[in-house]
Amino acid sequence: MGRAVVDELKGRPGAFDVVRGTVPGIKDLPVACKKLIEEEGCAVVVACGYVGGAPIDQECANVADHALQQVQLMTNRHVLGVFVYETEARDEREMAWLCDRRAREHAVNAWRLLFKPQELTAMAGTGQRQGYADAGPIRVDLREYRPRRE
Amino acid sequence: MGRAVVDELKGRPGAFDVVRGTVPGIKDLPVACKKLIEEEGCAVVVACGYVGGAPIDQECANVADHALQQVQLMTNRHVLGVFVYETEARDEREMAWLCDRRAREHAVNAWRLLFKPQELTAMAGTGQRQGYADAGPIRVDLREYRPRRE
Amino acid sequence: MGRAVVDELKGRPGAFDVVRGTVPGIKDLPVACKKLIEEEGCAVVVACGYVGGAPIDQECANVADHALQQVQLMTNRHVLGVFVYETEARDEREMAWLCDRRAREHAVNAWRLLFKPQELTAMAGTGQRQGYADAGPIRVDLREYRPRRE
Amino acid sequence: MGRAVVDELKGRPGAFDVVRGTVPGIKDLPVACKKLIEEEGCAVVVACGYVGGAPIDQECANVADHALQQVQLMTNRHVLGVFVYETEARDEREMAWLCDRRAREHAVNAWRLLFKPQELTAMAGTGQRQGYADAGPIRVDLREYRPRRE
Amino acid sequence: MGRAVVDELKGRPGAFDVVRGTVPGIKDLPVACKKLIEEEGCAVVVACGYVGGAPIDQECANVADHALQQVQLMTNRHVLGVFVYETEARDEREMAWLCDRRAREHAVNAWRLLFKPQELTAMAGTGQRQGYADAGPIRVDLREYRPRRE
Repeated sequence: MGRAVVDELKGRPGAFDVVRGTVPGIKDLPVACKKLIEEEGCAVVVACGYVGGAPIDQECANVADHALQQVQLMTNRHVLGVFVYETEARDEREMAWLCDRRAREHAVNAWRLLFKPQELTAMAGTGQRQGYADAGPIRVDLREYRPRRE
Repeated sequence: MGRAVVDELKGRPGAFDVVRGTVPGIKDLPVACKKLIEEEGCAVVVACGYVGGAPIDQECANVADHALQQVQLMTNRHVLGVFVYETEARDEREMAWLCDRRAREHAVNAWRLLFKPQELTAMAGTGQRQGYADAGPIRVDLREYRPRRE
Repeated sequence: MGRAVVDELKGRPGAFDVVRGTVPGIKDLPVACKKLIEEEGCAVVVACGYVGGAPIDQECANVADHALQQVQLMTNRHVLGVFVYETEARDEREMAWLCDRRAREHAVNAWRLLFKPQELTAMAGTGQRQGYADAGPIRVDLREYRPRRE
Repeated sequence: MGRAVVDELKGRPGAFDVVRGTVPGIKDLPVACKKLIEEEGCAVVVACGYVGGAPIDQECANVADHALQQVQLMTNRHVLGVFVYETEARDEREMAWLCDRRAREHAVNAWRLLFKPQELTAMAGTGQRQGYADAGPIRVDLREYRPRRE
Repeated sequence: MGRAVVDELKGRPGAFDVVRGTVPGIKDLPVACKKLIEEEGCAVVVACGYVGGAPIDQECANVADHALQQVQLMTNRHVLGVFVYETEARDEREMAWLCDRRAREHAVNAWRLLFKPQELTAMAGTGQRQGYADAGPIRVDLREYRPRRE
């Protein structure tokens, strides 16, 4: 996934460098992200991790996820977590496609946060999802609507 | 939902400006709220998010929720989380209505925290709920009451 | 419940003032408690909240509970959380009684922490519970006791 | 349990005083431990709590447990949590025995951390458990071992 | 496991000393790791723990795991958690083998983080697992792939 992020950012406009690091496991990501921000001067981080199918793997991802929030609050920088769960895909081919696509979409969002935040506002409420097809916006006419519990 | 918040605040009395930002996903909300407070000088934040129906979506919302608490404790500012869960509504129409109404009610509460905190005290214990009909206050006469486990 | 706390403290000895605040929901309690301590100079806080019966309500209470711990550790002040769960009582009457009584017992404990901490030590291990009847102390003679797994 | 801790420490060598405090409930322990360290100068704390059998009791213990970790990280001091769960014992007699014994074993460990840390290293991997009988060390000869998934 | 870590590091190149400490239980690990970093000057820590089979043991491990993240974020140093769960192995022999091997692999990763981070980048996405056989990389040709939900 790291390679997909780097590849996706290559052609994008704006003056920026990409710094890449690798850690042994998903729980090593948070402090590595913090060091990228504080020691390497990164303005935003895309943190990629693959989550196995056992309950303990999902618990590890949850622990890492909470810590990635702390990293952001301690640094005032965005860290976009790109976690792909083994249980999300039916086979290796779909998994490879999902890893590639989700990594690329988060890479674009990281770029948008730095260079085009207004693009994110324009997309708000349109049901964007990273990886699979977007859910699409909800468009309904509420003028005659009576809610059930009133 | 962001639009509903802005719309609801428009007519309200008091000297204030509304700053709006958008992030890619629900886990990007906390640091964005912190930056609105620390870098944009916001006195209160309404953080809107839509939570999908998969277990992982609900876990992401929980992670974001914990971090929104940290933002508040780090800044001494209120951040009102307006999360709407896909599982709360039966169809798209009810969902659209719920998003709109919950966002507006939290927007009013944010305004009250800044300009009319005494209105909140007057409403305490009256079973207010954001979105659906309020539960109503509990009014019972306890003078003759004998609790079961005494 | 706020009224019960204020009422319970009224007759108590010691030089103190009671400051009362209200927030829209249970997740708004932690930062409000921190502000009562840091901005209003409160020496102890009793934080009252009513928790609905849906799973999401209980998750919100848990998120607030974790944050109330942080408030205490950030300020070195006690915050006594008085949460009453919708599922604890059989009907509105029992609920009203439970809210009133639990609030009063926590109010007394807050007062004890400030003015009579030795009363708490004297009560240690006597099975005190806030709300329902106390469980009572365990008094057994262990001199001849043989534990099962030795 | 507090009494058992004090009693166990009484005969131990080393120059130390014991400071004892009591709080209303298990969620009041963390800030009390932090105050013992920061305001009373305690070098280590043994935090005793009894956990009821309801799910909410166990959630409270979990919240307190997370906060006890924060206390340690904020102070660089050990806090040994001695939680006894109502569900661990079959009757009041076993419970009283378990409370007493677990409290004493943690008291000894607190003493070891300060005065004999090398005793802890000597015991590493020997399956020590606080309360019930120790599990014992695992001693196997791995020279001919073939793991199943290789 | 501590012995396996020390043994594995012995032959490795680079100028470093190994400091070893032992704590009574898994929840005592986080503050001990923080003290190794802040008071002993350790550049990286390998934290070994054995997790029993009861639900409370797994909850303790989870509490410790969250705190190990905080240690890393407070110090900007990596702490590699090596937790082995009683439920992972079928018998004592497999358990002993797993403890030994997982400890050694994390020890090597700790060494790599300090002396050969580029080795970690070369291994990214190759499905490395600490303990059991590695899962292997996913190699598929996506050129003709059509995802199912598009």
